[in-house]
Amino acid sequence: MTERKVKQRTTVTIYGQQYTVVGHEPPTHVMEVAQMVDEKMREIRKRNPYLDTTRLAVLTAVNVVDEYKKLLEEHEKALKQLKRMTGDE
Amino acid sequence: MTERKVKQRTTVTIYGQQYTVVGHEPPTHVMEVAQMVDEKMREIRKRNPYLDTTRLAVLTAVNVVDEYKKLLEEHEKALKQLKRMTGDE
Repeated sequence: MTERKVKQRTTVTIYGQQYTVVGHEPPTHVMEVAQMVDEKMREIRKRNPYLDTTRLAVLTAVNVVDEYKKLLEEHEKALKQLKRMTGDE
Repeated sequence: MTERKVKQRTTVTIYGQQYTVVGHEPPTHVMEVAQMVDEKMREIRKRNPYLDTTRLAVLTAVNVVDEYKKLLEEHEKALKQLKRMTGDE
């Protein structure tokens, strides 16, 4: 694959604080990710209005890792099924 | 599906602080998720030793959402392929 490996700096605001993310991702991707984190933090705050920002951020991370693990299980099932169908076992 | 919907409280330690997670997930799952978050926070701290805990936790969440989005793309591709193979389009 020919992929441009130029590092870009993207500054985003999450929960009122600015973060500069450096990486190979296009700024639109970084902004989308930041927006999802911001929304999740606000969602969790609604259910737990007395949490301080650190605990809120940690619980947001817990939440996303939980969803990641569930998606990974689904994905592994789909890959297994694909493998069976292509006889690639 | 018959699934027991008993809510459980699981207390975990992430980055030196205790969190009680209430939900339908078995404690082993909650502990695994907590451990992943803890490890990720320590990993990011290594690369950014001067970050405060809030920013560290937010960047951890950013990191996981990024991985989640990438996995979701992969998963959607796999599902499309499965759909094509089963002629379910």
